[in-house]
Amino acid sequence: MMILHHGWRSSASRRVRLCLEEKGLAYEGHVVDMTAMEHHSPEYLKINPLGVIPRPLHESGTICEYLDETFPDPPLRPDAPYQRALMRNWIRHIDALIGNLIIFNWRHHLAKTASQWTDEELAEKLKNIPSKERQEAWIRAARKPYTEEERDAARGKLVVLLDKMEEALKPAGWLVSKTYSIADIAAAPFVKRIDEEIAPDEMTAKKHPRVHDWWTKLQARPAYQRANFGPFLTS
Amino acid sequence: MMILHHGWRSSASRRVRLCLEEKGLAYEGHVVDMTAMEHHSPEYLKINPLGVIPRPLHESGTICEYLDETFPDPPLRPDAPYQRALMRNWIRHIDALIGNLIIFNWRHHLAKTASQWTDEELAEKLKNIPSKERQEAWIRAARKPYTEEERDAARGKLVVLLDKMEEALKPAGWLVSKTYSIADIAAAPFVKRIDEEIAPDEMTAKKHPRVHDWWTKLQARPAYQRANFGPFLTS
Repeated sequence: MMILHHGWRSSASRRVRLCLEEKGLAYEGHVVDMTAMEHHSPEYLKINPLGVIPRPLHESGTICEYLDETFPDPPLRPDAPYQRALMRNWIRHIDALIGNLIIFNWRHHLAKTASQWTDEELAEKLKNIPSKERQEAWIRAARKPYTEEERDAARGKLVVLLDKMEEALKPAGWLVSKTYSIADIAAAPFVKRIDEEIAPDEMTAKKHPRVHDWWTKLQARPAYQRANFGPFLTS
Repeated sequence: MMILHHGWRSSASRRVRLCLEEKGLAYEGHVVDMTAMEHHSPEYLKINPLGVIPRPLHESGTICEYLDETFPDPPLRPDAPYQRALMRNWIRHIDALIGNLIIFNWRHHLAKTASQWTDEELAEKLKNIPSKERQEAWIRAARKPYTEEERDAARGKLVVLLDKMEEALKPAGWLVSKTYSIADIAAAPFVKRIDEEIAPDEMTAKKHPRVHDWWTKLQARPAYQRANFGPFLTS
């Protein structure tokens, strides 16, 4: 049995859960309490994000492609090399936008807690955070919470993502070629947060009709239900 | 005949040239004059970095994997899914370090030219630069050149890359598994610049013996010679 260490709200975890469910692979989920920063504890950094996957594979896009290469059925990558390249481009493009989601993370309760940390406590917490982008987000939460202008700019970039998706969905209703693929899986956690908290008004059938249909279709997949993007009734 | 639009010193171009040469694929090279910012001109942004490759494939790692999928012989990716995943991890890890190379780009002559631009000229130039990281580098060159401390920090991160490579090269002398792969190709342009300008003292047989041997071996490959990493006698 595979063991998956994951956070319910984490975009990376949501991707891998969705990929596992599409593959019909059974796994034992170990929930990491991200609000308690368990995912930055030395214990967690020592284990694998996905038990069966050797430790160095920590990126969700790479993990999904690895799962598809290891368990080819049903395929989650198009056959043609060019389509596969487009799929990888999408994953990378979406990854590069993660900073715009981070700005919206835990905005209320985190800033309140973090602002009470002493400089020493803050420095101690930062030591365990590998990504510079996330370190910056914690410093900002603790000392100088993101402004409304910064949130607007981040929201704007996520809306540009919806615009690009709208264009890409034109030929066949999926991001790459005619098939549902890891590109769609990579986008799903971003769209979930855009739809739910960041820019729900952009997700209407009027504003982005193809994205709206894609999202409806994706959410109707049994794997999506099992991947449990929220609300988190189980845990 | 494939057409490759490339810059001699660009890390992305060096990767793609090396990959094409390893594959033995003939191409017609169109040199882009990067010091004149031709690569940011609207004309260039309209064409493909690699003529045969459809426009959306702009990232060198994705292009190399696409070339390998399209022309499988000789293979530049390991067979096993896990090794392939490790290879993709390496490419992404190295990509994430590009900011540390950019700090050293054209440091002398560029800062001198750029400092003489008016605010309007600077704004005009920035408009054509898609990457935020590179925009920042131009702003810094024009108004507040990188400090010695910043260069030291960047150099430090590139030395950590050498440390990681040293560890990875232990089993077989290549970054992933027993085979020369796109991971090695992805690292080569970085190591070229570390060796030549950024931290040559770290490239000795004493400091990083396995990286030293790997680099000697890689430079001895006929494809490396043909890929022309410099000095640029042809043009």
